[in-house]
Amino acid sequence: MKALVYHGVGRRSWEDVAEPVVADPDDAVVRVDAVTICGTDLHILGGDVPEVEAGRVLGHEAIGTVVDVGPGVRTVRPGDRVLVSCISACGRCRNCRGAAYGQCTGGGGWILGHLVDGTQAELVRTPFADTSLYKLPEGVDDDVAVLLADILPTSYEVGVRNGRVGPGDTVVIVGAGPIGLAAVVAARLYSPGTIAVIDPDTGRLDAAKRLGADVTLTPDQNPEEAVPGLTRDGSGADTVIEAVGVPEAFEMCTRLVRPGGHVANVGVHGRPATLHLEDLWIKNVTITTGLVDTNSTPMLLGMLQAGRLDIGGLVTHRFGLDEMQDAYDVFSRAAETGALKVVLFRR
Amino acid sequence: MKALVYHGVGRRSWEDVAEPVVADPDDAVVRVDAVTICGTDLHILGGDVPEVEAGRVLGHEAIGTVVDVGPGVRTVRPGDRVLVSCISACGRCRNCRGAAYGQCTGGGGWILGHLVDGTQAELVRTPFADTSLYKLPEGVDDDVAVLLADILPTSYEVGVRNGRVGPGDTVVIVGAGPIGLAAVVAARLYSPGTIAVIDPDTGRLDAAKRLGADVTLTPDQNPEEAVPGLTRDGSGADTVIEAVGVPEAFEMCTRLVRPGGHVANVGVHGRPATLHLEDLWIKNVTITTGLVDTNSTPMLLGMLQAGRLDIGGLVTHRFGLDEMQDAYDVFSRAAETGALKVVLFRR
Amino acid sequence: MKALVYHGVGRRSWEDVAEPVVADPDDAVVRVDAVTICGTDLHILGGDVPEVEAGRVLGHEAIGTVVDVGPGVRTVRPGDRVLVSCISACGRCRNCRGAAYGQCTGGGGWILGHLVDGTQAELVRTPFADTSLYKLPEGVDDDVAVLLADILPTSYEVGVRNGRVGPGDTVVIVGAGPIGLAAVVAARLYSPGTIAVIDPDTGRLDAAKRLGADVTLTPDQNPEEAVPGLTRDGSGADTVIEAVGVPEAFEMCTRLVRPGGHVANVGVHGRPATLHLEDLWIKNVTITTGLVDTNSTPMLLGMLQAGRLDIGGLVTHRFGLDEMQDAYDVFSRAAETGALKVVLFRR
Amino acid sequence: MKALVYHGVGRRSWEDVAEPVVADPDDAVVRVDAVTICGTDLHILGGDVPEVEAGRVLGHEAIGTVVDVGPGVRTVRPGDRVLVSCISACGRCRNCRGAAYGQCTGGGGWILGHLVDGTQAELVRTPFADTSLYKLPEGVDDDVAVLLADILPTSYEVGVRNGRVGPGDTVVIVGAGPIGLAAVVAARLYSPGTIAVIDPDTGRLDAAKRLGADVTLTPDQNPEEAVPGLTRDGSGADTVIEAVGVPEAFEMCTRLVRPGGHVANVGVHGRPATLHLEDLWIKNVTITTGLVDTNSTPMLLGMLQAGRLDIGGLVTHRFGLDEMQDAYDVFSRAAETGALKVVLFRR
Repeated sequence: MKALVYHGVGRRSWEDVAEPVVADPDDAVVRVDAVTICGTDLHILGGDVPEVEAGRVLGHEAIGTVVDVGPGVRTVRPGDRVLVSCISACGRCRNCRGAAYGQCTGGGGWILGHLVDGTQAELVRTPFADTSLYKLPEGVDDDVAVLLADILPTSYEVGVRNGRVGPGDTVVIVGAGPIGLAAVVAARLYSPGTIAVIDPDTGRLDAAKRLGADVTLTPDQNPEEAVPGLTRDGSGADTVIEAVGVPEAFEMCTRLVRPGGHVANVGVHGRPATLHLEDLWIKNVTITTGLVDTNSTPMLLGMLQAGRLDIGGLVTHRFGLDEMQDAYDVFSRAAETGALKVVLFRR
Repeated sequence: MKALVYHGVGRRSWEDVAEPVVADPDDAVVRVDAVTICGTDLHILGGDVPEVEAGRVLGHEAIGTVVDVGPGVRTVRPGDRVLVSCISACGRCRNCRGAAYGQCTGGGGWILGHLVDGTQAELVRTPFADTSLYKLPEGVDDDVAVLLADILPTSYEVGVRNGRVGPGDTVVIVGAGPIGLAAVVAARLYSPGTIAVIDPDTGRLDAAKRLGADVTLTPDQNPEEAVPGLTRDGSGADTVIEAVGVPEAFEMCTRLVRPGGHVANVGVHGRPATLHLEDLWIKNVTITTGLVDTNSTPMLLGMLQAGRLDIGGLVTHRFGLDEMQDAYDVFSRAAETGALKVVLFRR
Repeated sequence: MKALVYHGVGRRSWEDVAEPVVADPDDAVVRVDAVTICGTDLHILGGDVPEVEAGRVLGHEAIGTVVDVGPGVRTVRPGDRVLVSCISACGRCRNCRGAAYGQCTGGGGWILGHLVDGTQAELVRTPFADTSLYKLPEGVDDDVAVLLADILPTSYEVGVRNGRVGPGDTVVIVGAGPIGLAAVVAARLYSPGTIAVIDPDTGRLDAAKRLGADVTLTPDQNPEEAVPGLTRDGSGADTVIEAVGVPEAFEMCTRLVRPGGHVANVGVHGRPATLHLEDLWIKNVTITTGLVDTNSTPMLLGMLQAGRLDIGGLVTHRFGLDEMQDAYDVFSRAAETGALKVVLFRR
Repeated sequence: MKALVYHGVGRRSWEDVAEPVVADPDDAVVRVDAVTICGTDLHILGGDVPEVEAGRVLGHEAIGTVVDVGPGVRTVRPGDRVLVSCISACGRCRNCRGAAYGQCTGGGGWILGHLVDGTQAELVRTPFADTSLYKLPEGVDDDVAVLLADILPTSYEVGVRNGRVGPGDTVVIVGAGPIGLAAVVAARLYSPGTIAVIDPDTGRLDAAKRLGADVTLTPDQNPEEAVPGLTRDGSGADTVIEAVGVPEAFEMCTRLVRPGGHVANVGVHGRPATLHLEDLWIKNVTITTGLVDTNSTPMLLGMLQAGRLDIGGLVTHRFGLDEMQDAYDVFSRAAETGALKVVLFRR
């Protein structure tokens, strides 16, 4: 079969590899019907994730059809249409039993396209199938459902839920990339009073508006002066979601939050930030970090089926699976191409 | 009357000042029966709290007897024995109505001995008396009750409750000063499995043991290696409480916490810390900061009355009120004198 | 001035009474600009609330303009446009300090039109003005804002929030009177997957649909068979809200809820219900009851101002204040007149 | 091997049966080292649990040693000393993934000694071994650890945790049988201010005192008058735990709770109760029911190992496994024999 193989820093190839097979009683093998590319895949290619070995098939998000299962698999069967989640869960360790699948210590967590071969291929082997695959409900389109493999649960759990967004709140999202935009949609599930999005790219701010942001700002527009004016009492945002992954963005978040508010970090950081405890120690602020657990996936699938997750606008480009190299090219030049999410389909 | 007056950096005097009177319908005037000195008072004298003006009477913790009340006061009467809390609450602003009295925007918060005259005096005027004074239950001793004016609710609310300590947990407290030691007592209310305390001063570690710590460590004893061994699964502490107020201590906390755990900052910081988001972004950590709200004060008073708060050991030195200068002297040389909390009594 | 006076069971009169004046330092006197009639007022007239004495001015919901305040009032001033809440809060008792204003033990709670004269009058005296009146934001219409005096916070707090409604949930509301209909609007703030409403009156079910219900059922349509089919796994509703106040409705709720789900009672009951513990003991069900606390009022006012509470449809009839008797007549014959909420305006 | 077999209402026999074997990839077979008898076993013999078929081996609590495992079992191995929990968890269904194992819909829940053969035998087959067995920590005695198979997690989760017991609270436990007594121990983990226990049997009340109850009352001592006097403000108990299982006890609980408090039902009921909604609708009460989920088992095992669960006093009688019939006899005549928990050991 064909797959996108990582060959060391900066090198990838769409090439023939051996087909995966069931290797453990809990495995499934899934035919990939739709797959997407994540910013993390670009980080791997950039050499930022050194534990990914040369020869690894990339990709950790897909919609597919089960073609084989091991003898321990009880809940999915060949022919089932499934969501392949970015997080695998052993289902047995302390963290999995607390629904913290992202922190699985029993062999799961983020492994697909990282420690084992991933989804940017015609077939993928998925460990711990019962607790890592999600049957798709009827009437859900592949090209939207695939966004539930990573960015929707990530923005919902790590941004909105960790950030305790509630009705009437003022929510600021710093960063309007795919995760930040998904956070706009996810935040609306709790009916905040105002959603403000900050990003230097006015095209992305337009996308934020279309998805439901009430206010958009570029960093030049002095967010630290503007945000208090958006709040009930001028005291700062109830929740600030960091969706960039650089120290400057995180530090801005800690200045925008009100006393008693939440800063929810979603961004993937490569460098430390400065935490101004000399200001914050007295401010009753809660700061959270986290990898997604994907325990919200069944709920999000239900909302998608019910027509209550309007996220189609996040998919800007569509390709055939065999156009993988083109898709990578478009996605990696997002500033030029305007790409948000690219989706590739089996034809 | 006599009072301890701040006269600018490094200068204090026990001197005659005018007696306070009811100035607002919500005021009370309270005769001070017992009072203590806080590390914060030393910070004021050190010039670290520049909004304190020369001429200010210091002190924000006391046990006293009401001598006069304004016409708007409904719940305390002259003759009532009361706890004067470090936090005053207007009772009307958004924060007060959410029990976040420390963040009062209606004229309260930490004002005593800071923005208005405080408790290190024979008499003190207490604004918003109904929502800032707490009637003492029968059978509670002044010299223990005075610890409920600040350090007990601070360690309980900002350390233990923000840090979500629960039964069976591994709790690490970094710093064994009065607040850290009070946190040992406060943490025990939730029956953690293990309480470990880290401090360079072995005398203070002995005090920690007497108050209920299971394990004590000096920073030389490699806490980062030792702590995981204290936990159920070797993954780090469930809750780490920062009770020092320096960047190094805070940063150690973020290394000792397990994925999914809590770092509760209680320390008063004067400098920024480095937040290693490159490690923490993936770790599902919650970091909290905060000034005490004192909404736990009634519960703590009840526990004290029921004999379930064994905190007497925190008081190392006792003085008469007119020995204020000596008490400051002993407290400010704690390393030599072994002082934890000093209490001064009306005679 | 004119006021609607209760003269014992079944007898009311719109008549001249003495104008109220500030009687306590915390009082305000408010000119009534808009007022409504509550089902509870009919219960009083029916003799079901015997502690209401003859001579009492009824009414506990209004929009008005402050005309006078006592010397202890700090946050409202003559000329301020305010919401008069059904619940008064002393702001000082244990319950008020825990935001449980409905359970105030310091002289507040539900007192207006019950233990003291109420809002169905040209002027009303409001005790504890700082903690019982809410300044109206700009741009909010009186005839919608008046619904925030009781039915919106009641349905939100006692129904939706106690019932822990969350994204994707299946919510069943039993009863489509004003409170049940308001619960439809309130539930939508948390983006449930499905809202089903049960009522025998198809006109009210039509109103439920207009306000956002996904499914409506009459009791004849076998809700116990239909509801499981609306849920993710056929196991019953996540939340069931009782908005009728009769044992049969409550008992139906306990049959419709899934294991692990919530039954939130909002209805005012006059008779005991049967609790089938022989079925429920094993079912992990949470049942809540409660009088509204109105601690959500500021948030709801913000949402109203932001245009995010679409509740205008609940007002079916409008009158002048001097048409009070006609308004009572229309409201008390709701089955005939189709009245949901009637609002009376000063002219 | 020998086992205690149910032969229809009122008939049990300790007799030879076939040894269990691994029948599913997720199974383990465990040699029983210690086992106890539950009040539920007596209910089965009394005919109250009709789904138990004649021929069934009873028992759902044990300490044992793994002797065989299926190919899908990853976390326990032959030779491991384990706790056999009363609840089995498939680990895959919605409820198991939410840690609600008692409500497992994938073939688990309470099945041992109910729907499949149980633990009152020399060997037992345990389905879903990875998620239903718990490895015993070092240094834990069998005769205390066996109490963690059911009564400790039940009293902790369904009583104390559902009832939201917190520091300083007043907790009333109605019923001083094994579950009620275990609730005394479990409640103390949260440092309530006062624990009161109500039971007609003064011997059991003495046991309650030894385990940490502050106050004991017989129903004759007018609990409804006495309980308010135990509370901070005379308003009723913060938490009332029903540990009897009869309507009268449940109804007493609803009269003892304060506005804003919790009634946590633990008792197994055979008849409906009357819920006085005409009093309770206005009272902000939360009532919970539930079968244990046993998600607290790892924490409780840790507390036991740390020496912080002082529950040994609950075991009043010890037998050899082959004295099963005698043990049943003693346990079923508890009023005479004073039996609380009887434990049987392999010799």
